[in-house]
Amino acid sequence: MPANDESISLPTGASSAREVRQAARAGRLSGHTSGLASAHVQGNLVILPQAYAGDFLRFCQANPKPCPLLGVTEVGDPSLPALGEDIDLRSDLPRYRVWRGGELVDEPTDVRTLWRDDMVGFVIGCSFTFEHALLAEGIALRHVAQGRNVAMYRTGLQTVPAGPFSGPLVVSMRPLRAADAIRAVQITSRFPAVHGAPVHLGDPALIGIRDIGRPEYGDAVEVMPDELPVFWACGVTPQAALAAARLPLAITHAPGAMLVTDLPHHRLAAL
Amino acid sequence: MPANDESISLPTGASSAREVRQAARAGRLSGHTSGLASAHVQGNLVILPQAYAGDFLRFCQANPKPCPLLGVTEVGDPSLPALGEDIDLRSDLPRYRVWRGGELVDEPTDVRTLWRDDMVGFVIGCSFTFEHALLAEGIALRHVAQGRNVAMYRTGLQTVPAGPFSGPLVVSMRPLRAADAIRAVQITSRFPAVHGAPVHLGDPALIGIRDIGRPEYGDAVEVMPDELPVFWACGVTPQAALAAARLPLAITHAPGAMLVTDLPHHRLAAL
Repeated sequence: MPANDESISLPTGASSAREVRQAARAGRLSGHTSGLASAHVQGNLVILPQAYAGDFLRFCQANPKPCPLLGVTEVGDPSLPALGEDIDLRSDLPRYRVWRGGELVDEPTDVRTLWRDDMVGFVIGCSFTFEHALLAEGIALRHVAQGRNVAMYRTGLQTVPAGPFSGPLVVSMRPLRAADAIRAVQITSRFPAVHGAPVHLGDPALIGIRDIGRPEYGDAVEVMPDELPVFWACGVTPQAALAAARLPLAITHAPGAMLVTDLPHHRLAAL
Repeated sequence: MPANDESISLPTGASSAREVRQAARAGRLSGHTSGLASAHVQGNLVILPQAYAGDFLRFCQANPKPCPLLGVTEVGDPSLPALGEDIDLRSDLPRYRVWRGGELVDEPTDVRTLWRDDMVGFVIGCSFTFEHALLAEGIALRHVAQGRNVAMYRTGLQTVPAGPFSGPLVVSMRPLRAADAIRAVQITSRFPAVHGAPVHLGDPALIGIRDIGRPEYGDAVEVMPDELPVFWACGVTPQAALAAARLPLAITHAPGAMLVTDLPHHRLAAL
């Protein structure tokens, strides 16, 4: 994964979630959060005007595997105490993306000047938590070993639409041998708040993926002859639905620059 | 599955476990138990002289997926009250197999005359319970729909040996589409006492199965292009290990003629 800002030295893994957020808030961290405060849950961010928040909430509710909601703010309030006492969604992520009419117009490190009294923030679970659980179980993940982003694909499966939000299910893929794939189904089933069990395994064409060697997002990773590609619903799904909705204004995290919460991973385990 | 004795009319499914055992005990039932008392757990039977019971117990303990023990009798006592108040293992199964030196020598409907004061009975979980759970979830099983026995294969995977007991893992195979296979991993994981989660899915060659169209036991069943073969550890594994051990005397159930217990299937669910 890309290195963090060279100008700062955050202790990888050992740094507390709060330290990471404070570094982002102070402008000392503007890169990826992967590997930082690694015992803690990270989340995807979506900020929308209230006029679209109801439809987006319905979209998440109808598509819980790609869009598992970890938290939703009060209207106009950028705090989210359920995920961390001091969280300010306007400044605590290292980098943001600003979308107007579905077009990416800016990538600031702070969105205080764009926040309004009608804004609502959504934090959506991310796969770091279940990857942490898989690695803890001794299941090797090739993209992690190779320091790459996970491979992600648009599928032929459609989300359940809600208002202006619709589009294909986007999935992440991890190649695993069958016994590890079975164990991974068991482990990730315990984490419905971070995409849960896989949605598919085996032949990619059955879910409309034409070329496993050419992911639409992230980096390609080899699938060995004794492995199956295993596919999980991915948090890029709501990002893609958001872009397709062409709202006048929407704010998201920049890829890899997530909200680091105070929740330990195991807090999300259903069992 | 083969029809039951035509001379009797046991109400399929609705018959109580006790009625099935009493029909077997009275000689009115000598055929298969599949579909009888269908809400109740059925089990594989092994009866051994005490001299071999310790090793067999260790074999089961070391290989819990193919040999999940539901009950073990006291030495010389053919009852098993934990599985049914009135059970008499010498008479309550419709048909038995008697093995001497690893050779099948008889298939009686009763083994009262063979029972001795040093005999120990073992009841091992069978896949009917998890198939019941899969069907209840709406997952179709082709061999059930086609009225065939499930397809079973010797694999290249070896059991952990104990004393004279050793040999290959035998697996049963059910073809499922990927989403059903993932759901089946979740469902069968809840039932460790009846083989639990699959041991493999996908390419049969990876576990040493040369020809999926030629099962060593049971009936072949087609795997459609959009399906994966899903493999579970099978109770034929201990039967094969027992035959290979060539003991002076061993008694088992005849294929398909199981012990019907009083346990409702859900009693075995871990969660």
